[in-house]
Amino acid sequence: MKDILARNLDAFLEEHREGELAGLLAELHPADAAELIMGLEEEEDRSVVFSLLTTEMAPQVLMELPEAEREDLVQTIPAEQLSRIISEMDSDDAADVVGGLDDDEAAEVLGFFKPEESAEVRRLLLYDEDTAGGIMQLELVRAKEDETQQEVVEHIRRAEDEVEGLNYVYVVDRAGRLRGWVTLRRLLLARPDDLVRDLMSDCELVINVHEDQEAVVQKFKKYDSRSSPVVDDQGRLLGRITVDDVFDVFHEEVDEDFYRMAGTSEEEIYSDSVFKISRLRLPWLLANLSGGLVTGYLVWQFKVALRDVLALVTFIPAIMALGGSVGIQSSTIVVRNLALNRLPSGRMAGMFFKELRVALVMGLVCGIGGALVAKLWHGQAILGLVVGLSMFSAIILSSVLGALTPAFFRRLNIDPALAAGPFVTMCNDILGILLYMGIATVFLKFML
Amino acid sequence: MKDILARNLDAFLEEHREGELAGLLAELHPADAAELIMGLEEEEDRSVVFSLLTTEMAPQVLMELPEAEREDLVQTIPAEQLSRIISEMDSDDAADVVGGLDDDEAAEVLGFFKPEESAEVRRLLLYDEDTAGGIMQLELVRAKEDETQQEVVEHIRRAEDEVEGLNYVYVVDRAGRLRGWVTLRRLLLARPDDLVRDLMSDCELVINVHEDQEAVVQKFKKYDSRSSPVVDDQGRLLGRITVDDVFDVFHEEVDEDFYRMAGTSEEEIYSDSVFKISRLRLPWLLANLSGGLVTGYLVWQFKVALRDVLALVTFIPAIMALGGSVGIQSSTIVVRNLALNRLPSGRMAGMFFKELRVALVMGLVCGIGGALVAKLWHGQAILGLVVGLSMFSAIILSSVLGALTPAFFRRLNIDPALAAGPFVTMCNDILGILLYMGIATVFLKFML
Repeated sequence: MKDILARNLDAFLEEHREGELAGLLAELHPADAAELIMGLEEEEDRSVVFSLLTTEMAPQVLMELPEAEREDLVQTIPAEQLSRIISEMDSDDAADVVGGLDDDEAAEVLGFFKPEESAEVRRLLLYDEDTAGGIMQLELVRAKEDETQQEVVEHIRRAEDEVEGLNYVYVVDRAGRLRGWVTLRRLLLARPDDLVRDLMSDCELVINVHEDQEAVVQKFKKYDSRSSPVVDDQGRLLGRITVDDVFDVFHEEVDEDFYRMAGTSEEEIYSDSVFKISRLRLPWLLANLSGGLVTGYLVWQFKVALRDVLALVTFIPAIMALGGSVGIQSSTIVVRNLALNRLPSGRMAGMFFKELRVALVMGLVCGIGGALVAKLWHGQAILGLVVGLSMFSAIILSSVLGALTPAFFRRLNIDPALAAGPFVTMCNDILGILLYMGIATVFLKFML
Repeated sequence: MKDILARNLDAFLEEHREGELAGLLAELHPADAAELIMGLEEEEDRSVVFSLLTTEMAPQVLMELPEAEREDLVQTIPAEQLSRIISEMDSDDAADVVGGLDDDEAAEVLGFFKPEESAEVRRLLLYDEDTAGGIMQLELVRAKEDETQQEVVEHIRRAEDEVEGLNYVYVVDRAGRLRGWVTLRRLLLARPDDLVRDLMSDCELVINVHEDQEAVVQKFKKYDSRSSPVVDDQGRLLGRITVDDVFDVFHEEVDEDFYRMAGTSEEEIYSDSVFKISRLRLPWLLANLSGGLVTGYLVWQFKVALRDVLALVTFIPAIMALGGSVGIQSSTIVVRNLALNRLPSGRMAGMFFKELRVALVMGLVCGIGGALVAKLWHGQAILGLVVGLSMFSAIILSSVLGALTPAFFRRLNIDPALAAGPFVTMCNDILGILLYMGIATVFLKFML
């Protein structure tokens, strides 16, 4: 049905059969409805289809939309209606949407809220977006150690509408400090008068509210957690983080790495402005341009050699291409290993050494290949030697630089992903040409 | 305690205080014990520490190790002991470990299993590693529509040891076809004589056993699923997939993309052999070398122009660097959008157009910058024009090529990530130089 709807959506909109469309939309899964809206080219159409959703579905669909689309769409919804949609959301989602508004709009929307609801959202907005506090939700079920199974079941019954995807009931002491959790399975198998104290176990993973979201992702993955409690520095239970939110964060972090390695920023996902995007990419491009000009300047310093042996020019592109590729290969390996915490510090040296040996093998193969091509092409054995030697040493040097830079960046607290992209390529271009021209000058007298 | 243990692990091993060490290890979380083992440089030490784990912990620790380390470690465990460890695992983990063994070893290990256990593992091994069947586990709790809440609770009690992380009980008809599920929360709030029929709801997401694992990841993310049933083509319930396994698959897929974009293969994570790794990377390097040589050959075709205006040589590196960077930027954006299904087909054209406009802006900035540098450096306005025009057009062309190639690869059923890396860079090097030399030739007579 989803596919039929997608194919005929334009027709429905053109013929203004909104009533019919609303009925069909109501039968979709929110994620499918979001996909349908995303597929519409015109922002106006997206806004019309969204307005046809039921009150129950609208908040869910909104949260399924990518952040950039969501923020665009939210602009088109009147404040009162928006506040009604947001108040149906989990607290973390509500805070995300309100956080994306201008201060004035946010105040207007929160004005329609019940006081305790708006306090909740305001509280969540205080936490840094990139920390555990920024992704946690406040909805959860709590119990005390001296309560019975029956009492806890009543807590769960009362929370039915509010808490989604419930796996655990969190146990707190009188001061609100987290003591442990009880799984729903354990509750199900217990007797009504069993005490929480006897049913509870230690939480496998407890997250501090100030922890960086990247650390939260690593821990969820490491401990295979589905839902973890969040506490403040005094150990008081504040909220919980569920695995689907962590999944989304992981997606974001991966994107960030991809974009940075390509020499741009993940911010451009959230932007439709050509100038903003250009501004994000240009610094890297200009850095590369400067690198290229510096390389060219170095070439120019050797113009005497070049004028005498113009054939040397023909291998500049190959040496640059090799250095660039090897650098990206080595640095990507190191960046990924660092990002996934796959590399205990004790084994870092081993990996560098491995990269070096791999570079030796590849340097020999490419160096000998390059030397043969140079000899056959221009008929000068000495040119072959210069080219082969240059390729071999450029590969070794690029690999070492590619492997060391990310670790070095990391030590300086700069994202290693920044190293793996444009930066390493730029350095390797310069170094490769310097090597090539240097070696050529040494052997120049034999080439004339 | 984990940190103290990590710091003193070497001392424990050297002084052969194994008994003490075993006691300390038993107190760790399996994930922490795995990290500790991973941190040891010598394979022998890793094997010794692993052998000190309790029977309960050994299977869990083994599954926490990265695949390459796990396979190395497994080689050091005698078949009978290994079979005991594997039989404690969930069926999907057991199949993964057995699947990593040679045929002979696998047969030997399975020989120690109970017949029904070895049949289960063999059955799972029949599914392609990269499909839902390859990641599902057989352990789950099933119920029939006419059973009561009380009967279902008994099913859960009996499955206590076997099924981990239980959120749902799956409902099947007499033919074993999946009819729906009951959440544990629903069971908890029901009365003992309530019928399953009245408690169950539709499963939000049902996975076909032959579905590609990448599709499974997308669906889990889209529907925020934590655990989904897997069925065969007739709709019969076979097993379930849990979100932690999906998380691991997602990690793998992301890594695959990173490695391919860098011009190597994710296989190298699983290899310690320098020659194997070199063999994985060399094809890309040789392709780049060839691309570089072709570029050099093109330069050579214009040797008359170069000999006359040697200053032209100094901008070859900059033009190559710009084309390469722009190509990587555009192709990365498209590859990520394709990988995350963020780009409905109807809006693909819009994105290309956006990339083009961004390229126009960046081309203007870099072109004007390059032209100025060329004029100031070599004092020839006409050289500035040639350089600026070349940079501008190289940026436009590289961006178009970078944006179109991934979509084109996708249509040919080749992974778009392969396009974003070495391939686009190679094409752009060649095209950039061709443009530069072509434009230079046109203006040559004004430069002399």
